Amino acid sequence: MTEPLDVRRLQRRLAEFAAARDWEPYHTPKNLVSALSVEASELMEIFQWLTPEESARVMDDPETAHRVRDEVADVLAYLLQLCEVLGIDPLVELDAKIDRNEQRFPRPED
Amino acid sequence: MTEPLDVRRLQRRLAEFAAARDWEPYHTPKNLVSALSVEASELMEIFQWLTPEESARVMDDPETAHRVRDEVADVLAYLLQLCEVLGIDPLVELDAKIDRNEQRFPRPED
Amino acid sequence: MTEPLDVRRLQRRLAEFAAARDWEPYHTPKNLVSALSVEASELMEIFQWLTPEESARVMDDPETAHRVRDEVADVLAYLLQLCEVLGIDPLVELDAKIDRNEQRFPRPED
Amino acid sequence: MTEPLDVRRLQRRLAEFAAARDWEPYHTPKNLVSALSVEASELMEIFQWLTPEESARVMDDPETAHRVRDEVADVLAYLLQLCEVLGIDPLVELDAKIDRNEQRFPRPED
Repeated sequence: MTEPLDVRRLQRRLAEFAAARDWEPYHTPKNLVSALSVEASELMEIFQWLTPEESARVMDDPETAHRVRDEVADVLAYLLQLCEVLGIDPLVELDAKIDRNEQRFPRPED
Repeated sequence: MTEPLDVRRLQRRLAEFAAARDWEPYHTPKNLVSALSVEASELMEIFQWLTPEESARVMDDPETAHRVRDEVADVLAYLLQLCEVLGIDPLVELDAKIDRNEQRFPRPED
Repeated sequence: MTEPLDVRRLQRRLAEFAAARDWEPYHTPKNLVSALSVEASELMEIFQWLTPEESARVMDDPETAHRVRDEVADVLAYLLQLCEVLGIDPLVELDAKIDRNEQRFPRPED
Repeated sequence: MTEPLDVRRLQRRLAEFAAARDWEPYHTPKNLVSALSVEASELMEIFQWLTPEESARVMDDPETAHRVRDEVADVLAYLLQLCEVLGIDPLVELDAKIDRNEQRFPRPED
């Protein structure tokens, strides 16, 4: 595949996947946001009983590492589908948010 | 700015932002996952009393649209910071997950 | 007040409160579950950057203690309203669940 | 069983259950709040693709009804264990919160 792996291409894959299965009627913004929150919690479930130190070593165990990667993918999938239906570019929004945060939390040495 | 806006560049901006404020000790995987889940819920809060139809028009109101964009940015920020500390490439993981889902949920016409 | 403070009385207060404000149409099970999840996250937000040790002292600060109590109340409020609309007795369900867990996770000395 | 089923008795059962399995070290407030949030999301997962109307009929299907009851029990279990370790009486807090809400959202006819 020569096309670079970027957010737009993943959004197209997700849109085609949903369309081919007639899942679009389920993909209201409200439902996608719920699904995003559920997937974020499934990721958190992996960490809920770990100490901070154990949480830093979570990728050392191959099976746990796979679960983490899988849930990260699910969170991103619903975030990108939500942005698609709402017409939001998440990278532009994050770039603008970091700009605002730099105003709100000035560097200590400033 | 000539450098394209991509995930890697946003991760560098986030890492520099946290380092300049000595926030890194707080950014354990466990804490970042909690923050991700909290931000996903703040996004959901905007939609919680809306009908499916109202949720589809959420970007029509400028103030609500701003809140949605702001929370989307926060969700992405914590997801990218989590991936950074865990050494995960979220785009690669999502691409691989869509591949797996194509096996798991075959197209109806297949 | 001579009537004891119990779950049923709180459910009646919550139902009267919602009815007097015509909020019942918003209280679908789906919306109440979203609100429950949002409130649980608002509670988690208080703890998200704390170490385990700091989290154990959270009630020492009066202002933080008030926030915790307030969010605990919100979580319970939505849980009780959800149970009301679904016809579930949460105390009976928890009692039965502990019975099942005693089968599933036998005591080590057994 | 002659003792009435109330919150205090369920908290005692939960505390004995955890103590017998040496689970207490895991039950920091921070961890219990995460677990509460995860269980609230597992409850939400049942509803995430349902219409409001479908969500109102969720108890008609015996298998789904069992899942709902089971997750409601889990949410209450972690809420009560959290209140136990923090020294909070959730019924008192909710009663006080309804009082505050009656001030904050006066009845329309008032």
